[in-house]
Amino acid sequence: MDRNERLQQLIRSNRLRELKADLSSWNPADVASFLEQLDGERRLLVFRVLPKDLAAAAFAYLPPEMEEQIVSAISDAEVGQVMDRLFTDDAVNFLEEVPANVVLRALRSVDKDTRERITRFLNYPKNSAGSLMTAEFIELHDRLTAREALDVVRREGSRMETVDVVYTIDDTRRLTGALRLFDLIRAREGLALRDIKRDQPVAAKTLEDQEDVARAFRRYDLTQMPVVDGEGRLVGIITADDVMDVIQQENTEDMERMAAMAPSEKPYLKTSPFALAKKRIVWLLVLMISATFTGGIINGFQEVLSSVVVLAAFIPMLMDTGGNCGSQSSTLVIRGLALGEIRPRDALRVLNKELAVSLLCGAALAAVNFGRILLFEPQTGAAVALAVSLSLLVTVMVSKCLGGLLPIAAKAVHLDPAVMASPLITTVVDAVSLLVYFGFARAILGI
Amino acid sequence: MDRNERLQQLIRSNRLRELKADLSSWNPADVASFLEQLDGERRLLVFRVLPKDLAAAAFAYLPPEMEEQIVSAISDAEVGQVMDRLFTDDAVNFLEEVPANVVLRALRSVDKDTRERITRFLNYPKNSAGSLMTAEFIELHDRLTAREALDVVRREGSRMETVDVVYTIDDTRRLTGALRLFDLIRAREGLALRDIKRDQPVAAKTLEDQEDVARAFRRYDLTQMPVVDGEGRLVGIITADDVMDVIQQENTEDMERMAAMAPSEKPYLKTSPFALAKKRIVWLLVLMISATFTGGIINGFQEVLSSVVVLAAFIPMLMDTGGNCGSQSSTLVIRGLALGEIRPRDALRVLNKELAVSLLCGAALAAVNFGRILLFEPQTGAAVALAVSLSLLVTVMVSKCLGGLLPIAAKAVHLDPAVMASPLITTVVDAVSLLVYFGFARAILGI
Repeated sequence: MDRNERLQQLIRSNRLRELKADLSSWNPADVASFLEQLDGERRLLVFRVLPKDLAAAAFAYLPPEMEEQIVSAISDAEVGQVMDRLFTDDAVNFLEEVPANVVLRALRSVDKDTRERITRFLNYPKNSAGSLMTAEFIELHDRLTAREALDVVRREGSRMETVDVVYTIDDTRRLTGALRLFDLIRAREGLALRDIKRDQPVAAKTLEDQEDVARAFRRYDLTQMPVVDGEGRLVGIITADDVMDVIQQENTEDMERMAAMAPSEKPYLKTSPFALAKKRIVWLLVLMISATFTGGIINGFQEVLSSVVVLAAFIPMLMDTGGNCGSQSSTLVIRGLALGEIRPRDALRVLNKELAVSLLCGAALAAVNFGRILLFEPQTGAAVALAVSLSLLVTVMVSKCLGGLLPIAAKAVHLDPAVMASPLITTVVDAVSLLVYFGFARAILGI
Repeated sequence: MDRNERLQQLIRSNRLRELKADLSSWNPADVASFLEQLDGERRLLVFRVLPKDLAAAAFAYLPPEMEEQIVSAISDAEVGQVMDRLFTDDAVNFLEEVPANVVLRALRSVDKDTRERITRFLNYPKNSAGSLMTAEFIELHDRLTAREALDVVRREGSRMETVDVVYTIDDTRRLTGALRLFDLIRAREGLALRDIKRDQPVAAKTLEDQEDVARAFRRYDLTQMPVVDGEGRLVGIITADDVMDVIQQENTEDMERMAAMAPSEKPYLKTSPFALAKKRIVWLLVLMISATFTGGIINGFQEVLSSVVVLAAFIPMLMDTGGNCGSQSSTLVIRGLALGEIRPRDALRVLNKELAVSLLCGAALAAVNFGRILLFEPQTGAAVALAVSLSLLVTVMVSKCLGGLLPIAAKAVHLDPAVMASPLITTVVDAVSLLVYFGFARAILGI
């Protein structure tokens, strides 16, 4: 990048004032990207040159290891300056990822109120609404007038994460409504907030799961959402940008589970081989051991295999097709469950659909397979072709129905449906398809 | 639901005024859910009872087939009332999904300006920024003063999708900046917008891919984004709610491709078995035919299999483990590519990582497998156990490296990396693992 090149030059020639002037107009996310590319010493140099607000904003975009490195290298006073400027949600994200000594140092650097607030937020369980929310929003007593409210917004707004919507509370700090800033500027100045028509906002509870929060954002097309505690008191807000991250993170986790891995929070390239291996090995071992049962089935039918040796050649095709069919169905159902489009009570509808689909797919595959064997491998013979094709049809039907139902069953007993994906279903379907196959072979070939 | 029950009662006893009063305080998304549960006739009845603004807002949340059904049943004047109240993006979403005769009738019902605007928006390619944007936003000439700007916002704001951010343009309608409504209310009244410190907003081009738009939203934590045409003129805005839908839709498509299906736009339960089968059958056929090559390998090694029959029993375990390993690696890399965390030039880093991970996993699996055979199947013998375990190690290493590299290769030649997932990699890895297996068996067992 041209812009980066120029800045690198400024750093090399130590023209820090120009560097500062240039960076000051940048978006904090871009500043963070630039900092990421530098080595540790230069990163620190540039970080210290930045205007304080921009430094804190860019800090929040850095990966945890660089945040930690910076905090370890700067003075207590500087740590305090960063911490004071961070939104609570960014401070919490940072503190959740760094070692205890860094947490203690960071908390020591802020005033008592901030420390108490951050500590309270840190205590909400991971993946709860409470852990997503931030404390920088405007709450107004609903006795205030529109003019008083606007004065508060003007005075305090720049310290807030957003003032697009402000919230009204009553004497007991209970959430009573939401007002867009637009509603405020349109209202008659002397009117009390409680007399302005407010929205009854969709609110989250602090302990609500972040997936449910994300679903509510999508259902109601929200850009922000208030969070209330058990008594209905307003304690924070969640903004759309954090919800987008939640959506991506939940999707990544689902995909990882569907590929038989323990979910990971760090980006792939930043995870060590040892950590990656640890996430993968458990399921690989479980599935490997399970697959030996499939081997046991082959062992049990040795006499069938040795009397018609060509039968073995169709095993990979049967197993793979069964696995693929099961994986298609389970993927659609897992996804439908995650998006709330399929519920456990739809099990029968899913079964009916998969029966119909698998009959269509199975018949087509079986017909093509039968024709292919007769045309291109005539030495195999029609009897074997028939046994293989019938097994294929049954395998497709069983695997699609299992693929459709197992994720729903998992959901019904409060397991993660994503676990019932391709790898596990493949292992089950392998055994089924071999039993069916040897059954048909025996019956049709009279072995 | 209790609330629904009460409303159903009101409908049955034809107390429409009470029904209207009750529904009027509902969120449009909830009204749409309620309408969805009703039969066609009652849905129409309730839809007509709704206040016009709420009716249009709820309409936008309905599934396309119900939108179509309502439009076919109401008068031209009523269609016009709905269309006039829809935001352009919702109108476009609706018109994209319904048959041509409905489109013509809907377009006939609106005035010339609206018709021209909708037609222009309809012409943007699917999945482009242009197809996501809406026309209901406030643009202000940057010569206006803050007071004049606020007057415009007060006057026109309620017709807009959002006024949290307004945009400034110059004489040629080029986008010159973005101002939060908060910046406007803080500014000195007489100050011209061009003299207020504005943000230089991150803007999308009309033809930009929606995935890039979503990535920019996440990178810069945006809640809305202006869209400009080839000349830099402001033509629309994209809001965060639509971007969340894009993110979910793109994730669903990736998962569908990763499970060897053509992506579908309709929810699973609303898709016919025939349509579902069509999405699945092509890949199933391709993969089934490919798997016959694997069968060919088994055929080619008949003499190995018939001299040591127990070898066949380990084929499923080898194939499945190889498939699972490849699927783990490819899933992580496909996801990393989609999130922009991995780029094609990282190929070597991915290869190094997968080599290390696969050595760790492969060695562990091989050791467990070797021990398991000796302990629980001593009749199999150490030589076979060695052949199986060495094959396992090599299979794991090959499949993880292929799983890591194939998606990157696909990306490099502008194919969708999601296609290089479990099913395709399994098919490739099956052949490799069998060749390795028979090779080791021959060498170690001296067949």
